Parts: sequence; C-alpha cells; structure tokens
Amino acid sequence: MPVLRSAFLAFVLALLPGLVHAQPAVEAARSHRQAHEAQILRDYADFLRIPNVASDSVNIRRNARHIQQQFAARDVDLDVLTVDGVPPIVTGRIEAPGATRTLGIYVHYDGQPVDASRWTHGPWTPTLYTAAMHQGGTPRAFPADGESVDPEARLYARGAGDDKAPIAALLATLDALQERDIELTSNIVFLFDGEEERGSPHLNQYLSQYEGRFADVDLWLFCDGPVHQSRQPQVVFGVRGVTGMEVTVYGANRPLHSGHYGNWSPVPGQMLANLLATMKSTDGAVLIDGFYDTVAPLTAAERAALDELPLVDEPLKDELALARTEGTERLEERLLLPSLTVRGLASGNVGAKARNIIPSTATAALGVRLVKGNDPNRMLDRVEDHIRAEGYHIVRETPSDSLLRAHPRVAKVTRGAGYPASRASMGQPLANQVIAAAERASGQDVLRVPTLGGTLPVFLFEQVLGTPAIIVPIANHDNNQHAPDENIRLANLWYGVDLYAALLTMPAR
Amino acid sequence: MPVLRSAFLAFVLALLPGLVHAQPAVEAARSHRQAHEAQILRDYADFLRIPNVASDSVNIRRNARHIQQQFAARDVDLDVLTVDGVPPIVTGRIEAPGATRTLGIYVHYDGQPVDASRWTHGPWTPTLYTAAMHQGGTPRAFPADGESVDPEARLYARGAGDDKAPIAALLATLDALQERDIELTSNIVFLFDGEEERGSPHLNQYLSQYEGRFADVDLWLFCDGPVHQSRQPQVVFGVRGVTGMEVTVYGANRPLHSGHYGNWSPVPGQMLANLLATMKSTDGAVLIDGFYDTVAPLTAAERAALDELPLVDEPLKDELALARTEGTERLEERLLLPSLTVRGLASGNVGAKARNIIPSTATAALGVRLVKGNDPNRMLDRVEDHIRAEGYHIVRETPSDSLLRAHPRVAKVTRGAGYPASRASMGQPLANQVIAAAERASGQDVLRVPTLGGTLPVFLFEQVLGTPAIIVPIANHDNNQHAPDENIRLANLWYGVDLYAALLTMPAR
Repeated sequence: MPVLRSAFLAFVLALLPGLVHAQPAVEAARSHRQAHEAQILRDYADFLRIPNVASDSVNIRRNARHIQQQFAARDVDLDVLTVDGVPPIVTGRIEAPGATRTLGIYVHYDGQPVDASRWTHGPWTPTLYTAAMHQGGTPRAFPADGESVDPEARLYARGAGDDKAPIAALLATLDALQERDIELTSNIVFLFDGEEERGSPHLNQYLSQYEGRFADVDLWLFCDGPVHQSRQPQVVFGVRGVTGMEVTVYGANRPLHSGHYGNWSPVPGQMLANLLATMKSTDGAVLIDGFYDTVAPLTAAERAALDELPLVDEPLKDELALARTEGTERLEERLLLPSLTVRGLASGNVGAKARNIIPSTATAALGVRLVKGNDPNRMLDRVEDHIRAEGYHIVRETPSDSLLRAHPRVAKVTRGAGYPASRASMGQPLANQVIAAAERASGQDVLRVPTLGGTLPVFLFEQVLGTPAIIVPIANHDNNQHAPDENIRLANLWYGVDLYAALLTMPAR
Repeated sequence: MPVLRSAFLAFVLALLPGLVHAQPAVEAARSHRQAHEAQILRDYADFLRIPNVASDSVNIRRNARHIQQQFAARDVDLDVLTVDGVPPIVTGRIEAPGATRTLGIYVHYDGQPVDASRWTHGPWTPTLYTAAMHQGGTPRAFPADGESVDPEARLYARGAGDDKAPIAALLATLDALQERDIELTSNIVFLFDGEEERGSPHLNQYLSQYEGRFADVDLWLFCDGPVHQSRQPQVVFGVRGVTGMEVTVYGANRPLHSGHYGNWSPVPGQMLANLLATMKSTDGAVLIDGFYDTVAPLTAAERAALDELPLVDEPLKDELALARTEGTERLEERLLLPSLTVRGLASGNVGAKARNIIPSTATAALGVRLVKGNDPNRMLDRVEDHIRAEGYHIVRETPSDSLLRAHPRVAKVTRGAGYPASRASMGQPLANQVIAAAERASGQDVLRVPTLGGTLPVFLFEQVLGTPAIIVPIANHDNNQHAPDENIRLANLWYGVDLYAALLTMPAR
C-alpha cells in the first residue's frame, strides 16, 4: 500500500507544474531545487553531521553557529542568543518592504538523544538510501551536480526529519526567491530552538527576556511534525502536551542468586509489572483515577474537520504490522485523549547477558501525552496517587537501606519536565491564507487537523507572547522520529522548499 | 547485625585450634594455610585472572589447562577431556593405598556471564578488599609472604565464590597433607566441569562416554554453593533444578513517536507488564495453572531437619534491606517450592537514553527453579499454556510482518536448557561421616539441609552413574554469586582448606 501510494504521489508531483498554475514563487522554488538537488543535499548532510543532542553543549553551539553562517550567506543576519549557558536560540528577522504583517517561523535544531548502537549507520553519519530501509532501500552515493534523485530516496540521520529539515528547505527557498528577485510579502521573524526535544525548559525565559524581538508577530508558523499518514499535506491547529516520569522499584539491596532466594526475596521486575498492569487495561484504557476527567470537549468545527480526515487506520495497520490498536476509535480521535506509554523498561539483563539473579531494581520510563484541559503537574500527581494507592512509599532519591527496610514497597519517582497541550481556534484570521499556500505548494487538498499527536512548545507563544500558532508540517510520517534510523523522504523535503516559498509570498490581506 | 555476627565468628575461628582437638589433617591444613596465606592468595588470583565464561572457548580451555598444571605440580595427573568442541572437563584420580571406597569431587570452573560495566573492578581483575564492599571494605594490597590477612577480607572476581574457590582450597589442602605425609583414606576422583553455569549441557555425554572413570565412586561430594546465612557450615542433600525462557512481545514493526501514535498503537512494555502480572500475585504466589501440582512432599526426616535450622529470615531481611518477603513461610520452606523470577526486563531505554517513543518490542528473561517432582519441560509447557490463555500466539523465531498483522498478540518464546531437582536420602550411608568431617573442620555444629536453593547437575550423577551426591558448600552466602562484584570471604576459603583435609582423611568404615 504505502509503496503504491507514494509512487502515485511522486507521479502527481512530477506532473504538477503542468497541472496547476503554481504561482511564481512556488515555480521558482521548484525549478531552483530541481537544478540544485545535489548542492542542497550536500549542504544538508553537512548540517546533519553536527551532533545535536541538547545536552552536548559544545556541539549544540556548533549547530547554532552553522545556522547563523548559512543565513548570513543569504544576507540574513541572525543572532545567537544565550541564556544561562543552555543551548542558544538563533533569531533574527527579514523586513519585507511595505509588509503590513509579520510571520514568525519556529524550527528546532536539536534532536532526541540516541542509542548509537541501534542505528544502522551512526546517528550523525548522514546516509542517502534509494528508498526507505524498511521498504528495501539500499545505500547510494550522494548525487553529482546536476543529477536528479528519486523523490522516494531517504536521507538518514538524527534530526533529518525532526527537525532540521525545515532549516535546509528554508535556505533553499531563500536562494530560489533571491535568484528571481521575488519579494517577501510579510516580515519574517525566525526562532530556532536548541532544546525542544527536552521540553524547551528555557524557551519561556528566552521569550520573556527578548520579548521585543517577537512582539509584532501576528502568527507563528511551527515548522515541525509530519504530514498526514496518507502523505497528504496538512495544517494543524494544536498539539498534545507532554510530561512523564521514571519509576524505580526495589527488591533486596544487592542482586541475589535466583536459586538461593527465588520464591522468598521480592522480584523488582515482577513488582514493576504488577504495578504497571494496574495502570492500564489490556485494551488500552488508562485505569488511573481521574486520568480522563479534565479533557476539553471538541468544538463543532474541530469535530467536523476530524470527520473529514481520510481514514488511515487500516493502511497504517498494514504498514506497521498491527493486528489491533488500543481502544476502538480511529487514530485521530485517540489523539484527543491523554496517553500513558511505557517508553522503556530495564531490570537486570536479557539475552546473552541474562544471569540467574534477582536484580535489585526495575525501572520504567513512562511518557504521558496531554490534551487541552490537562495540567502536566496535576496529571503526574494522579499517576503518583495511583502508585501510592498500590501500596508504594514514594521517594525522590535513591532510598537508604533503613528506608527500604521500613517500607514493604518503595518507588523512586523522578518527574520529568512537561508542558501543556494547545489547540488554536480553527477560525484563526490567517488560517485560510496558510491553507491556500499549502495547496499552492502541494497541488493537493490540504487537511485541517485539530491536533497533532506530537508536542511543540506552542503554549509558550500563546501564554508569553499572546500570539496564536499554526503548525505546517513537512516531514514524512514514517521518518522514525525520535527513534533509531530517523530519516527524511526527499519528496517531503522538496515539499518544504515549495511550501515556504508559498508561505513567504502569501498575498497581502 | 551481619558485621557483629561475622566478627564473633572470626573470633571463634581464631580460638578454634585451642577449643577443639582437631585431627592431625585439619591441624596440618590450618597451620600450612596460616604460613602460606600470601602464596595461596597469589596463586588463586592468577587462576581468577583467566576469564571463565563457558562461551569464551579460548579462555575456558586456558582455565582447564591451568587446573591440570596446578594438580600436576602436586603429582596429581589429570586429563583434559573434550567432547564436540565444548568446554573440557578436567578429570583424574588419586589412589589411596588400601582404601576401600572412592569419593568423587565435583567442582565447576566456569562462571556466569558478566556485564563488565557493572563491576567495580573488572570481573577478571581479582581485587582484595579489607572487608565486604557493602560493609565498608576498601581495596588493599595482596599480603607479603608470611603476612596474615584478616579473615573478613574478601577477594573480588567472577568465579571467586562460585566456583573456583574449592579448587584453590583443594590445592592448598593437598600441599598441607603432602607436607606432613598424611595419607588419604579414600580414593579420590576429580571432575572439574567447564559449563555448569549454562546448565552443563554436555555433562551427560561426558559421564556416559567416560563412565569407566567414574564407575567406582561411592559418593559424589559437590563442592559448590554457600554455607548457611548464619555463617554456620552446612551439608546439603539436594538441589533445586532450573530452567527458564525468554519472552518477547511485539507492538508495531518499528519504534513509533509516542505523540503521533500514543493511545493508538499497542505498547509492548505495557503488554509485557500485563502478561507478567497475570503470572504472579503481588504477594508472590505463582498464578500459572498447575505450577505447584507436581511438588514432592517432604519426608519426615527432611521435615525434622528443616525445623532444626536456625531462623535466618529476620537477620537476612536486615542485611538485604527487605521489609517483606514473598509468601509467609520461612526461607528454607519457600525453597521447597518452584519459583518464577523475572531475571531481566528490556524495552526501549530508561534514564538519559530514554526517548519519546513506543518501542517495538519488550522482552522478559524468566527463570524457573524446580523442586523434586517438577519436570523442566513440563513446567515450561505450563508457562506457555498460560501465555496462550492470555491471548498470545506463540512463535519460536522473530515474527514476520504478515504474522504480526494476523495475530492481535504475538509472543516469541525461547526456551532455555534445564535440569531437574534432586534430593538424596538423608539416611545416605556416608552422610554421617561427611557431617562429622565438616564438624571437625569447623569446630561447629553442622546444619543438615534438605535442599540448596541453587542448582547443580546432581541428577546426572544419580541418573547416568547411579551414584548419590551430597553438597558440601564453603562459600559465604553473601558472595554475590552470579552478580557483579562476586567475591569470596577469606574465612570461607580457609574453611574449605580445612574441610577438604577432613573429608580426604575421613576414618575408614
């Protein structure tokens, strides 16, 4: 299914210049890109080669300087602003002569942490494939100047899809518009975030401290996230929030021989399983008291938009090899509820390193996605209340022997940072303009989606700056975002080049 | 508590030569050891420096040759026998002039696999500590010749306690007896096993192929396992059996973004938790149908011996920082039931490497300890029946996408090797002789224990050779057997030297 559909889309994309009367900016973007695919990919690979985990303070700054240099080469002066020694934001603006509005463009250049051993190539060894690995693609050389690449080709690297792709596409768009002297129709404010993947813990501070730089933005365009699973372009009005915690439960204070103590000493892996099983039913309903209580209801417009989305459940189940899903509702409906996900489990060892012991601890990394109405802290409180109700004494630090000796069940809970969901009104003043731009760029109908499943720090822009935001994703849905072998499908990168050309030249009101 | 008790025991041990009239062999062993502690420890450290995981075929052979050389230096010729390219057994005999019986001595020289990153020093970097690490011991230099070491000192290395210690002690015993020209009173057959820690999968073949070498053994002495948790010496009449399996459950065929798919795609870590929770209650009762059905009842002698054992539950709970245990019965009673232990859990990542994904698999390593009456295969069948009853389709190989698409719940089950429990009659002809020898060596009452919690391939000696076996452990119970920072407490190593002197010179019937 996906192969057929993608091939069809590639066919349609190839015919597009003849099928629709794309406006000059999109045409300029497309012909520039077609002539310079090799250069764009080489430059993008150079960018992807710089490791971009937010905690890697040296490399994260190298990324920021790289962005600054690349924009400077297009005569756009950006500042690398730093607060408190945390990853910088890169920001600046382009003044459009006579423009009466200002668009903000948000992208993040950091990526999720990596387990390098699970990547086919290194996470920062950008590798071009003829097609997706999981669809039989094989490594191929980067193209020579003037050579065109199959739009089904994929570029693999951490950040390739999430979220350096918009930066690579924006640079190509700027080149294309400058080449043909096409004027922008809005002032543009750029904001490149360097720690989105750990929850943008300092963005609030950046926005407050440098509020003046962002004050005149009428609408923020969040360039992040994937297009629809049908590969149709989408414009998204909200995001889920996110939080999480790590829970460690304890057996004896040292690993024990499973023969001499098995059946007598508590087994942390078993305790953790029993605890997690009380949190969620086998059909996916979260059993934590009050977990669903604060969910905001859908508006009529959101309900209508939802019902218009193509059903993707069955093709997705084919693609992902799933015989069932949690709950019975369609995917988009499930994303309008908060979720509880076991992101990781660890106790002792499995496989060749498994030993005949009772490990002394077991740990679960739990992720919680939030929807409009959920307060991140209050949701974690509910999870903790549940853990307590299961008989656990909760601690924040690794417990001492005397504490363990005193409490039959001890759980160390480490709460993660988090931020709430946002859902902007679908009646947004500029919304129809943005949708029209995406339609010009793609030559397709554009889906209007109430919320993305993923999370972006949209709420900060609403809360600190009072400015609404719309998400304009470009990445393929199967980009292995946050996982090993993250990638971008070239057709999606090229869509980005066209989309930004259309957005930067939207007709004045 | 443990510190006080150990100090008291050390005090008693120091007085022993004056308190009891140890027979000449034990006296010879003790004075030889006291004069040569430095040399014995140096030699033992050289032995421990050779990596000894059974799968490491090069090093496992180095261990075998080392044993052969060490015995050759005491004029005992051993053969290194090899079957099928698996770890060798080292075997041979000492003829005692005029002896009317033959004792078999079984020790294994391989150790459990290691996760080197979790050891304070390398697993094969033997390191001497002033006392146990967990009781505040610190690293110290090996003693100079003639220097005596605190018997509370510990030597850390893989195999230090399980099970190279008896080999080091036996060599010292032989030196001591030869030094004073003390004659053995039994013929001795040695059998050093090189793959006990992976279930001695070829010992059956070795015993069958070389049966003639073992045919006249009247009783096998299994030199393995720990003394009682009270640090009192014990003689043990049985062992638990062991088996196990690894279970992997599946979500989507690739890791998914926890935002875009969380609440819709099944979460393998959650599925595994729900499955494991159905297997065992929070108070430690295994809920698998028939799990306890085939347990052999205790004999009256076993019941009586059990009731005479000192209660160790409360001091052990202090030592291990446990506020509760599984079940309500005392430790020794719990060991007479089969156990189900989560040895390992793995899904995605926890800690700094945790990412916002839904991992595509979750795996549990399950250990099953068996008691008399349990058939290993039949017990695993019961676990599999349970997994099926929970709705899982069981496969043996990594499932294809089409198989996953067809079955709502798929579990890959990899069954481990296993062997049954054994429990010899406490009325064993030579049993009282062995107990008396242990009493001479220790100067203490010796506990008679129906079964060790751990596992040894005793059943093979009973089944293939028709020869009974008794276990004569020397290691400290807190030797971190099978775990990181395995160690031997020197007082226990010295007990071994004395014990073997007493056993090798037991009065003729």
